[in-house]
Amino acid sequence: MAANEFSEPHRVVYYEADDTGHLTLAMLINLFVLVSEDQNAALGLTTEFVQSHGVGWVVTQYHLQISALPKTGDQVQLKTRATSYNKYFAYREYWLLDEAGKQLAYGEGIWVTMSYATRKIATIPAEVMAPYQSTQSVRLPRLPRPDRLTETADLPTKPYTVRYFDIDGNGHVNNAHYFDWMLDVLPADFLRDHQPADVRIRFENEVTYGEPVTSSYEQATDSLTSQHLVQRDDVVAAKATIQWQART
Amino acid sequence: MAANEFSEPHRVVYYEADDTGHLTLAMLINLFVLVSEDQNAALGLTTEFVQSHGVGWVVTQYHLQISALPKTGDQVQLKTRATSYNKYFAYREYWLLDEAGKQLAYGEGIWVTMSYATRKIATIPAEVMAPYQSTQSVRLPRLPRPDRLTETADLPTKPYTVRYFDIDGNGHVNNAHYFDWMLDVLPADFLRDHQPADVRIRFENEVTYGEPVTSSYEQATDSLTSQHLVQRDDVVAAKATIQWQART
Repeated sequence: MAANEFSEPHRVVYYEADDTGHLTLAMLINLFVLVSEDQNAALGLTTEFVQSHGVGWVVTQYHLQISALPKTGDQVQLKTRATSYNKYFAYREYWLLDEAGKQLAYGEGIWVTMSYATRKIATIPAEVMAPYQSTQSVRLPRLPRPDRLTETADLPTKPYTVRYFDIDGNGHVNNAHYFDWMLDVLPADFLRDHQPADVRIRFENEVTYGEPVTSSYEQATDSLTSQHLVQRDDVVAAKATIQWQART
Repeated sequence: MAANEFSEPHRVVYYEADDTGHLTLAMLINLFVLVSEDQNAALGLTTEFVQSHGVGWVVTQYHLQISALPKTGDQVQLKTRATSYNKYFAYREYWLLDEAGKQLAYGEGIWVTMSYATRKIATIPAEVMAPYQSTQSVRLPRLPRPDRLTETADLPTKPYTVRYFDIDGNGHVNNAHYFDWMLDVLPADFLRDHQPADVRIRFENEVTYGEPVTSSYEQATDSLTSQHLVQRDDVVAAKATIQWQART
């Protein structure tokens, strides 16, 4: 395995699954972050070490392509690669494989380091990037963005308030929790009968403890594509486009 | 290991922990249920088998005693015992041990089988109980109940709406999610600086998808005991008393 790659086995357990027994989208993201955290630990890049440079890793965009979601009890393989980076951005890839090595899902993410002092993007400290032996390149792959909403007025919307347990070590809502809000507005029967096939999500502004947010979506009748918007007042926190397929 | 006992190792991962890096109370319950589900699977007592008798297991009460909560990355041991039962109730014990075998937490639970037809308690089918080789006894241990609230008016309260992802295979809110509501009403600084030491919780009425609930609590100034009430309209869904200790 190249220095910038890492993989590990995982067993899907019931609290990572929905009421159909399938891994949830939020948990797929959690597993992708888990394998990258374990890579970090193996390279000595602990959270404390990264934070000692005054920054924390923050994701700005994901593109996920999902052919099937594993079920409770399934043994899977998690894999990641810290593929390339430039001064401000790091491009990372993720794979979810079944026990036989068949790909179930593939993900790409664009990460930045956020300065804890300014809460803004900072130059990636060389010390936190060097151990991956990733490729340095001026141009990184551009992930496809969410679609534009055709209109934002009168969309189906639910309000949420950020809970203590939504917050992570960076002091803001952990990226996986956005999917709880984005998917919860969809009808339960739709969620039960469909699984995400392609997800484009962009995180635009952080949300912190106690803040009220709204989650809205737009989906034409019988369409298998939904557009999602999470806002804090009039500020966009995250946008996503999800293409759905019938449950396999 | 006796037929009614089961244990397995587990590694605490970051999405099972709060922003202090400690296992959450909801996840402690998830881990206890996990080891019992794995015992069930090992004995051929799959969810499908239990459901084929027209019932599902539902917890009515827990008593937890916690000396320390493990942190992200810690290897722990989960253990359970289906200790005893009678016609309507099953008494189960749980242990969370550290890698060296030292006890971190101990739990007791009273479970019943709920009829899917009537949504009420049903006689435990002999076929779903026999494989544990548990002790049959007329009297089971009685778990300590939550305290009575001194008053229920004007308590600090937050509203929640049951989300699709709160629902489990029994078609109601999974018991671990009550802790998300019960703890989220406490101040974040209190949650950051304290951990539960003793938890008595009683589940009185089920809550289903889309229903609005309120979570209220009562805690005297500087007291390390909090009283919790989750209600659906005026119906009590769950009550709890939690004794807290400073973080270890």
